[in-house]
Amino acid sequence: MEPGDEAGGRWLREFGVGEVVRRLRQGADALPGVSGTRWGGLVARAGRAEPERDLEVARAAGMRFVCPGGAEWPGQLDDLGDGRPVGLWVRGTPSLRIWALRSVAVVGARACTEYGAHTAASLASGLAERGWVVVSGGAYGIDGAAHRGALAVGGATVAVLACGVDRPYPRGHTALINRIAEQGLVVGELPPGDHPTPSRFILRNRVIAALTTGTVVVEAACRSGSLVTARAAQRLGRFTMGVPGPVTSGLSAGVHELLRGEAVLVTDAAEVVELVGDIGELAPPRRGPVLPRDLLDPAARTVLAALPGDRPAPAEDIAADARTTRDEAIARLYELRALGYVERHGDGWKLTRQAMMSVREGRGGC
Amino acid sequence: MEPGDEAGGRWLREFGVGEVVRRLRQGADALPGVSGTRWGGLVARAGRAEPERDLEVARAAGMRFVCPGGAEWPGQLDDLGDGRPVGLWVRGTPSLRIWALRSVAVVGARACTEYGAHTAASLASGLAERGWVVVSGGAYGIDGAAHRGALAVGGATVAVLACGVDRPYPRGHTALINRIAEQGLVVGELPPGDHPTPSRFILRNRVIAALTTGTVVVEAACRSGSLVTARAAQRLGRFTMGVPGPVTSGLSAGVHELLRGEAVLVTDAAEVVELVGDIGELAPPRRGPVLPRDLLDPAARTVLAALPGDRPAPAEDIAADARTTRDEAIARLYELRALGYVERHGDGWKLTRQAMMSVREGRGGC
Repeated sequence: MEPGDEAGGRWLREFGVGEVVRRLRQGADALPGVSGTRWGGLVARAGRAEPERDLEVARAAGMRFVCPGGAEWPGQLDDLGDGRPVGLWVRGTPSLRIWALRSVAVVGARACTEYGAHTAASLASGLAERGWVVVSGGAYGIDGAAHRGALAVGGATVAVLACGVDRPYPRGHTALINRIAEQGLVVGELPPGDHPTPSRFILRNRVIAALTTGTVVVEAACRSGSLVTARAAQRLGRFTMGVPGPVTSGLSAGVHELLRGEAVLVTDAAEVVELVGDIGELAPPRRGPVLPRDLLDPAARTVLAALPGDRPAPAEDIAADARTTRDEAIARLYELRALGYVERHGDGWKLTRQAMMSVREGRGGC
Repeated sequence: MEPGDEAGGRWLREFGVGEVVRRLRQGADALPGVSGTRWGGLVARAGRAEPERDLEVARAAGMRFVCPGGAEWPGQLDDLGDGRPVGLWVRGTPSLRIWALRSVAVVGARACTEYGAHTAASLASGLAERGWVVVSGGAYGIDGAAHRGALAVGGATVAVLACGVDRPYPRGHTALINRIAEQGLVVGELPPGDHPTPSRFILRNRVIAALTTGTVVVEAACRSGSLVTARAAQRLGRFTMGVPGPVTSGLSAGVHELLRGEAVLVTDAAEVVELVGDIGELAPPRRGPVLPRDLLDPAARTVLAALPGDRPAPAEDIAADARTTRDEAIARLYELRALGYVERHGDGWKLTRQAMMSVREGRGGC
């Protein structure tokens, strides 16, 4: 099934995945609302599909498959209705569900200007420094600058690809995407080995829009793909933002068009956080349940125990105290940040006032 | 009385100008709501004032004094309440009242960038080409670029000064301001010979805001004077617009601040006209009465009679037909434009469809 196939999504919802697979494999009668030709194509494709092999390849390469309803499934993707992904392939250690709780998409033109690249990178650095996860599409230009900006300050970033997550695209971003898989998450709805196509790029954008609290467009010509992401974000009720540029630049024209509509003009990370952030910025996120401390992952509890309450400590020190690696510690710190347990100050991390109070009051959770 | 003196404005409204002048000249008892000290200062100043001499100097230098309620008074200035100007000194032939009906303010930083100057000039050219009058403050930077942009396409422009209109300020703009007085209007509320002061600059801005249908800010640092104009325009219910720029430029920071509030982002003249213009752009302006043809100034009627209905003619040809100068013809064409009689197409002018229909139907007015 191609990404965003709403008829397919409806079958899965109505008949369940087992029944749909059984009918496709047996070449049985077509499901309702699909022409004979199209059904024939799907049956042929189902014949070629090797899900068991895909899962095996994936596991061997350190990937996992996250399904709707599963513990790591980001519930906000359900806002896509029958067009939600059938599942997401994931590379990287952090929990996609928890990271997505405090995430912002930074997207824009591939053929961006120096101005755009600079702005995307400093925006992403600023967001990461404030404990927000930067989500983008791994492409050249603005996407790459955003990922690099987050990584540069030891921040959290997620690349959502339009192809198999084992096959970094574009090729020139292989090293970047592998680095994101080590320090963050690489995510996609296509099975291992699949190639990107123009329609897959466009459909990938709905995942970026749905996954995040808001989307910032940095540079985009009129009719740019990143405007698709922004409009999807708008339709889904997410915050939509744009970074302005010179009116003489065609690469800002699409952003200005957005800003003349309902998007909010932002000039730096502080303004983005002001919009998407929770009131007071210490409150637990509005979306998703807040886990009591006892229900935290053991690795997260170990990192939490290593956190100072009085002054911020660098991730290296926390990692050493928790007897784990720096990358693992950072992944857990971002999870704990999303849950309201810790806050970031420049290069350091400390317990939030809320978390400290719950410790002092001897309560198990906060 | 200093510009914007609301107590003074209230006296004029309550007691009439004759009574206020009589009391000040006689050093009589203070008017209500003013301290003895302040009243003393006003009496001393009234003793030094020479209104008859001012009027004589003004007449000799080709200036006139336009008063509230007079035929040339722009009624929209009454929106300033008791803070409206006591009157306006005017240099130039066109009717201030009629020009103000279709006017837009283009204002911004004195120490602007090349980008700002370029944008202000092309915005003003575009507005003038669409038959709109460009109003600004005659200052260096954005103001000067806006005036020049309008003049460059033979367009209409009004400079509102913070000093006597016989005393161009800044000195370096003497030639520009004199040219505006020849082809357009130079306006100010201070008597001949008066100097500008910081507070007079700020108070001048309320006149620019009130006179025009909308204000566009092109470049402005935070706390710039042009933001005062924009906020005054907002308070007065006028359209407020801003031209974005790079977020890395401090000279766009003030504009971006406005755009994060209620101002509308605009990138060219078409977008400004779309906002401030009347529906269909041929309808007579919403504000002010529409004069029937018989009530037009004889000079305007002569120019109207010289206008072709079928194809646009250049201002030179119309001037020749009307046996007047090009500058005089342009001044009248803008008046007629404001009244819905003529429209501009590039370098040419022709009758509007409305005006032609009223001619065909043999009606005196339209």
